[in-house]
Amino acid sequence: MTRAGVAELSRTAGDDHERLARVWLGVRTEPGDLAVARLLVDVGAEEAVARLAAGRGPAQTVAPVRPDREPGTTAARVLESASRQGLRWVCPGDDEWPARLHDLSLVGDVARRGGTPAGLWARGPRAAAEKGRMAVAVVGARASTEYGNEVAGEIAAELAEAGVSVISGAAYGIDAAAHRGALAVRGPTAAVLACGVDVAYPRGHDAMLARIAEQGIILSEAPPGDHPTKVRFLARNRLIAALADAVVVVEAAWRSGALNTLLWAGELQRPACGVPGPVTSALSRGVHHVLREHRAELVTNAAEVIELIAPLGSAPLPGASGWNRGERRPLDGLDPMTVAVREALPVDGAAGVDLLAAEVGLNQTQALAVLGRLLALGLAERNGAGWRLPRRGGLSGGQVDRTLPT
Amino acid sequence: MTRAGVAELSRTAGDDHERLARVWLGVRTEPGDLAVARLLVDVGAEEAVARLAAGRGPAQTVAPVRPDREPGTTAARVLESASRQGLRWVCPGDDEWPARLHDLSLVGDVARRGGTPAGLWARGPRAAAEKGRMAVAVVGARASTEYGNEVAGEIAAELAEAGVSVISGAAYGIDAAAHRGALAVRGPTAAVLACGVDVAYPRGHDAMLARIAEQGIILSEAPPGDHPTKVRFLARNRLIAALADAVVVVEAAWRSGALNTLLWAGELQRPACGVPGPVTSALSRGVHHVLREHRAELVTNAAEVIELIAPLGSAPLPGASGWNRGERRPLDGLDPMTVAVREALPVDGAAGVDLLAAEVGLNQTQALAVLGRLLALGLAERNGAGWRLPRRGGLSGGQVDRTLPT
Repeated sequence: MTRAGVAELSRTAGDDHERLARVWLGVRTEPGDLAVARLLVDVGAEEAVARLAAGRGPAQTVAPVRPDREPGTTAARVLESASRQGLRWVCPGDDEWPARLHDLSLVGDVARRGGTPAGLWARGPRAAAEKGRMAVAVVGARASTEYGNEVAGEIAAELAEAGVSVISGAAYGIDAAAHRGALAVRGPTAAVLACGVDVAYPRGHDAMLARIAEQGIILSEAPPGDHPTKVRFLARNRLIAALADAVVVVEAAWRSGALNTLLWAGELQRPACGVPGPVTSALSRGVHHVLREHRAELVTNAAEVIELIAPLGSAPLPGASGWNRGERRPLDGLDPMTVAVREALPVDGAAGVDLLAAEVGLNQTQALAVLGRLLALGLAERNGAGWRLPRRGGLSGGQVDRTLPT
Repeated sequence: MTRAGVAELSRTAGDDHERLARVWLGVRTEPGDLAVARLLVDVGAEEAVARLAAGRGPAQTVAPVRPDREPGTTAARVLESASRQGLRWVCPGDDEWPARLHDLSLVGDVARRGGTPAGLWARGPRAAAEKGRMAVAVVGARASTEYGNEVAGEIAAELAEAGVSVISGAAYGIDAAAHRGALAVRGPTAAVLACGVDVAYPRGHDAMLARIAEQGIILSEAPPGDHPTKVRFLARNRLIAALADAVVVVEAAWRSGALNTLLWAGELQRPACGVPGPVTSALSRGVHHVLREHRAELVTNAAEVIELIAPLGSAPLPGASGWNRGERRPLDGLDPMTVAVREALPVDGAAGVDLLAAEVGLNQTQALAVLGRLLALGLAERNGAGWRLPRRGGLSGGQVDRTLPT
């Protein structure tokens, strides 16, 4: 951005340069463009816009970024137009912003797609309520079977009834069954789209999307009005995985986008789950494949999914509230495996989940569940991509930061 | 046994004391009686009979052992009567004896049942042929579904076609589907019963058992004429697991005898496999449970089972002897499909059987058979879970490691 450009942005945005710069990035760059995401992390939103709008951005962007002499005006115009439609921009600094999306900046990419989005467009009332709520992605084949739809709907309904938000992609098949399962019990559900949040895609889901926008929330990285492209679906899948505490695949053929979402879950150290089906069904082949490779846990119902993530979302365990008032020893009442994991945590630096899991003889999903419990109890702490003992040891009570990674 | 008893046994049996003593143990003690099995290991068959027949056996036998003043006569009489029916006694020292049953003496017990049997009663022509052959147990629920029967029959047929003996318990449901799958392709199958090998149990399987006795073999620890009891089914399950290289459970309700067989497989360090099904089916619940606990590998077809037991023919194939003496080019005389599979192998990394099969248009079982041939010829190599060209190209002869993966 030229100095004039920066000035223009400042003039337009008042104090909210950062926010407007992020809108511009969301509008003028391709969703999931890793080069843009890295630039954003490296130099901040305003400088990123300054460079990209002046044609001085990284060469490796997925699509060329058109220079823009008045980025502030561009961003303000889109924002205003979106606002008239009842759509809003959610980005870091906003209450609604799901901080767990930042995990995307810690992991790799898939075909140069990846990274934390500059922000998300949102439609619907739920975003604030979703924050801090447990969320599970339920995804799968478009050409699903009756069995798959039934199981996805059932699992989603049970999750929603338990207060867990059901995230999916609003596609035909399993996605729709999942959203509908949550809607049916008036539960929370979030649709993450590859098109603008105001675009009815697929067409046949116009009414369903309208209900989600009333009862839940629709989110997208793509600007309002934009249509989906094949690569945007892939970029979108990373958001579904990053927004969720766990990803459940219900049916997936041999090569399937749903498995791509599962891959992202693995990258992000979210539990990846697969629901088996008849081995005679082609629609279960992809799921069985990842189960066979131990890239996902076999689950058969919502309770088994919640078991994998509950410790991360729950308050200190019942009966455990006393410890931080000095009434009980912090390790009292912990099962031996939880104690073992805590003992494996380093005092300095960070140990990855894989390492900790190997040390105590758990698989990664199990280890993650135990770490979540320790985190909730203030007995473990995240450090970058890894885990360590809390700096204050978690023994001193009130000082312990019990914030969950989100 | 009193000294007189020993003398009597010797007189009756001539040089074959050991064999006759084992017959007596098989006739007069309860199948799977761990106290008897331990006594047999500790003091040998003749001394074991001497003690038990004299009422001086261990106190902890499952059922009291009736004293017998003429054990040799008793054993000889049963043996002769069995022989008149075309039944035979198979025990250590016999060509037919499946030595792998001795693994049972190395592992624990289930409700005091366990241990290597003194011998087995056999009916049918196959026993000698079975020796050294790969064998897979296919077991499951009696009250199976159409889905389970279909899958069990299909897997059994594919196993049998690949030359693998299909072992099961001749019960209604999955067991019967497995035997029938093998019989249908005129393949090898063995029924291991909880009753005498001459007893048609269940009644409805009279004809099927007759076919197995013609085409395969029927085995039992229980003496001819004996009827099954509940505990004998449990004792029998350990034999199914011990006779097999792997155990596959197709359908099993929450608590099920088939899972008991799987438990024995685990004890015996045989691969335990489970075939998933619809999560909506109660008949798949037990299988999903053991899969979730990682007590069994998820399998969806016969090829995946064969892959686990490292099947692939042990000796170089006929006609292959020349190449490693430098007389022939390695690819000479190979059929086009074998050449095609070899050409599909990567130089680096590894390609899975599924991928290779898809590339050349074979099913997985066929592709695995071809890969086994290439492996035996030193023209393919295993790499992790996949396959590749040998590092030395398989062209140099003597250096190539032709060891089969086990």
